[in-house]
Amino acid sequence: MAKKNRLIYMALGGAGEIGMNTYLYGYGPEGRERFILVDIGVTFPDMDSAPGVDLIMADIAWLAERRDRIDAIFITHAHEDHVGALGLLHGALQAPVYARPFTAAIARLKLEERGQDSSVVTEVGPFPVVTEVGPFKVSYLPISHSIPESAGLVIDTPAGRVVHTGDFKLDQSPLVGEAFDPALWQEVARPGVKALVCDSTNVFSPNAGRSEATLIEPITALIASADGMVVATTFASNVARLKTLAEAGRAAGRSILVLGRAMQKMIAVSQQTGVLADFPATVTPDEAGDLPRGDLMVLVTGSQGERRAGSAQLANGKYNGLVLQSGDMFLFSSKTIPGNEVSVTRIANRFSELGVDVVDDQMGHFHVSGHANRPDLERMHTLMQPQILIPMHGEHRHLREHARLGEARGIASVVAPNGAMVDLSGNRPKIVEQIETGRTYLDGNVMIGAMDGIVRDRIRMALNGHVAVGIVIDEDDEPLGGAWVETHGLPDPAGADHTLADLMEEGIEYQLSRATNKMLMSDEALEEVIRRAVRKIGLEIVGKKPEVRVMISRLVGA
Amino acid sequence: MAKKNRLIYMALGGAGEIGMNTYLYGYGPEGRERFILVDIGVTFPDMDSAPGVDLIMADIAWLAERRDRIDAIFITHAHEDHVGALGLLHGALQAPVYARPFTAAIARLKLEERGQDSSVVTEVGPFPVVTEVGPFKVSYLPISHSIPESAGLVIDTPAGRVVHTGDFKLDQSPLVGEAFDPALWQEVARPGVKALVCDSTNVFSPNAGRSEATLIEPITALIASADGMVVATTFASNVARLKTLAEAGRAAGRSILVLGRAMQKMIAVSQQTGVLADFPATVTPDEAGDLPRGDLMVLVTGSQGERRAGSAQLANGKYNGLVLQSGDMFLFSSKTIPGNEVSVTRIANRFSELGVDVVDDQMGHFHVSGHANRPDLERMHTLMQPQILIPMHGEHRHLREHARLGEARGIASVVAPNGAMVDLSGNRPKIVEQIETGRTYLDGNVMIGAMDGIVRDRIRMALNGHVAVGIVIDEDDEPLGGAWVETHGLPDPAGADHTLADLMEEGIEYQLSRATNKMLMSDEALEEVIRRAVRKIGLEIVGKKPEVRVMISRLVGA
Repeated sequence: MAKKNRLIYMALGGAGEIGMNTYLYGYGPEGRERFILVDIGVTFPDMDSAPGVDLIMADIAWLAERRDRIDAIFITHAHEDHVGALGLLHGALQAPVYARPFTAAIARLKLEERGQDSSVVTEVGPFPVVTEVGPFKVSYLPISHSIPESAGLVIDTPAGRVVHTGDFKLDQSPLVGEAFDPALWQEVARPGVKALVCDSTNVFSPNAGRSEATLIEPITALIASADGMVVATTFASNVARLKTLAEAGRAAGRSILVLGRAMQKMIAVSQQTGVLADFPATVTPDEAGDLPRGDLMVLVTGSQGERRAGSAQLANGKYNGLVLQSGDMFLFSSKTIPGNEVSVTRIANRFSELGVDVVDDQMGHFHVSGHANRPDLERMHTLMQPQILIPMHGEHRHLREHARLGEARGIASVVAPNGAMVDLSGNRPKIVEQIETGRTYLDGNVMIGAMDGIVRDRIRMALNGHVAVGIVIDEDDEPLGGAWVETHGLPDPAGADHTLADLMEEGIEYQLSRATNKMLMSDEALEEVIRRAVRKIGLEIVGKKPEVRVMISRLVGA
Repeated sequence: MAKKNRLIYMALGGAGEIGMNTYLYGYGPEGRERFILVDIGVTFPDMDSAPGVDLIMADIAWLAERRDRIDAIFITHAHEDHVGALGLLHGALQAPVYARPFTAAIARLKLEERGQDSSVVTEVGPFPVVTEVGPFKVSYLPISHSIPESAGLVIDTPAGRVVHTGDFKLDQSPLVGEAFDPALWQEVARPGVKALVCDSTNVFSPNAGRSEATLIEPITALIASADGMVVATTFASNVARLKTLAEAGRAAGRSILVLGRAMQKMIAVSQQTGVLADFPATVTPDEAGDLPRGDLMVLVTGSQGERRAGSAQLANGKYNGLVLQSGDMFLFSSKTIPGNEVSVTRIANRFSELGVDVVDDQMGHFHVSGHANRPDLERMHTLMQPQILIPMHGEHRHLREHARLGEARGIASVVAPNGAMVDLSGNRPKIVEQIETGRTYLDGNVMIGAMDGIVRDRIRMALNGHVAVGIVIDEDDEPLGGAWVETHGLPDPAGADHTLADLMEEGIEYQLSRATNKMLMSDEALEEVIRRAVRKIGLEIVGKKPEVRVMISRLVGA
């Protein structure tokens, strides 16, 4: 008997964290479903859990093994957490990529950056334009967010219509990008929505979101109040905010200078693809140098305190010839992402030392979020009246809270973290399988698994230090000379005549002097006894059990 | 001609960060002033800047060199950031210690923990009791904060009266500890205050602080709304909050269980020293085991997501026989300190996975700060009418903002970060010298300098990995056998047949084969060429420049 067709949903990333969004839809008989992938993003490492790692993305091993079943990859918008892994992972998936023009331009850059073929990207228009791939008919449904051309997806399948919101807010005057159009979304909802797969980022924000347009006035007033230079930062990709800031600067009678490649690139791509019009004229750094400080408004990168970005460089001294001084103002037109507080605060304090006034959103109305708040999510539920609600884009607590919101108004809601395969075919969502998911790291230029132990070893070295031991064993299996110990990242004992390495060498030599012939003949046994001695001495003498590597050179008889 | 006497103030810690409070006052001829030290606290390390470090405190080298001039150490209250370094640093200072009884009990514990003589601690009563040491007459002025017996200091000198607030809030019904008594402070101000040295922690909080007493009602209502077990966390030292939580639990008809040694110790010391009365009766873990979940209220440590505290252990499974489940509630009656967001969020998500409802202060009125907010600071300025204001307890931006507040109402104010020696003798504060200050780390059981390079090496290993190289050079200065490479925390090249260590061994052997005799005879030259080769190969093959340690064993001719 042939198996029945089913419609499935599964997150590989983004349901259990903010970031690395990677969602899979499947339709067909169990185990032979055809797939489309929605988004393929990254998230950023921190020193606590992933020191030295460059980027984090979903582990797609399960999907890569089934790549012949993938019909397409759809990108909802051009944020790093939605498109950032395309260049790194596309080689393992090899499916055609669809996106709206601005997003497509960024997607091509992502592929080219990693030496991949960017001709796999096809530009598509907005709803009602339909892209048919396998059993899926997919349309891009424009919606407001903090980057141009953001869109939800209308995914029609034989089992019904799924609406995947992507990142969104309900902004009816967003300045850049399309406004939220309730009539359009209502039209999409009319035939009935099987499942709404919905952004959950701001489910804990109790008040309705505010429009980008509400920022112009307070930011203009703020700039007008400043005597010296005004420098502002926000995400480079927040093209609407760049325009808001530049227009506020111009309204306050200042010339606009944009610094930083990421920001300049975003503005250029936005202008080339037609999504950004009327950006105020800018001046070059040279021209800016000739202006009085009070006539200048500068836009820089680094809203999250990133070490190499404009804000950090200005805080440390000079950036593109610019030096901030007493009487200048620095505006964070941004929200600090959890985990970045320490870096952002460090910069604010450096500015304080220079006499620069630091302003952020806590001190006035200088930032709006790009995500739908709790009442906006409820409005979306009302508009779409879905049979099923699947919260996405969020940590577990966001997904759970959003599902409770859905259940409270009678929508069958499911918390489906990464790897939970949900069958949407029936009236209620059903978790039918749990796939093993995880994280892949870009570490230097190598892709490694989060659980490979490489990063764990680095964390252990950061906490406990490292000891390398070298010994030479002669042709008669006798130790030749002493042991050589090199410590790294370890303190020496206080006030003692001997270094920690000296004491470890003594301890190892003592162990070697007591070693049996059998032990001396076995590298493994020797390593074990040396490692134990070193860790014991470390703990006793300086209170640390270091990582240990032992190198045994054996001389071979002629 | 004899030098004139002067009155000086200098922070060694606490003015440029939140934490490690260490303040010095001096009176006498320049360079021969007699000193008193106020507080000697710690701050806590993070993975970004101090991985593996146990505690951070002020570098007191400058003061230790002048320790014969220290007449006393006064501790304002028993928080770790005010007394936590006493046991570690008292040996280098050797001065008598004064504190009120509860604080003295904790100070003695701090000394005993580190094997120091705790008989140096003398208990003193509150104002108008005066302790006379050298040219200083010092009184403890009770004020409300989040730990019992907090006090400011009235420091009378021949050059006038200094009021050092310590940590404070203006709570007239604090539940535990003395209420803020405006009449008492007014009395102190009456003879005129030369300088107010004032807490700045909450200078950016725009609204007047709220009393501890306002929490009982909402927390009782919250607990009453819960079906299952309720677990709450706050700082162990916040004895008032523990009492608030326990009373709210009792009012909601529940039995109270207190878990965690730190919390039990704080309650015991509070009861022994008489500062905590009427704490509700508690049950033992065994008794709790026999109660229905809905009848139990548990207090645990771990409000900052500390890895080994109660909250983290409950989130990971079991703690003291307790397991949380769907329908239970976990309350963070606390503020997350910047830098701890990721740890706290991780725990909240674990609870979400278990079906436990997590509640924090954002969702209701379940926490009040222990520090004076901006309007409270202004009220303190008005009460004290000081000639000079020195903001302390704060990052640079807090000090600067607080000084602006003072200047705005005509008080001569000075931003004096750690190491800035301020002469208070004249009508305006004058920075007369800048002492080199810094941080000392407790690393395992050794005290090291933040700039010693030890922690820097650990950070580099965490970011870049470690490579140990061993080679043997024979009696004729020729390499014997190949090179031995051990990598640690480094990835291997993708899809290649060779490990990174293999490729590094090859590269080193190639360098050795080309080495001149002169180079082979010099350990230094060999090390340098090997280190360069290893880092170059690391960068080329996996994109990382590791830390390198080279061990050269030379066989010596018979």
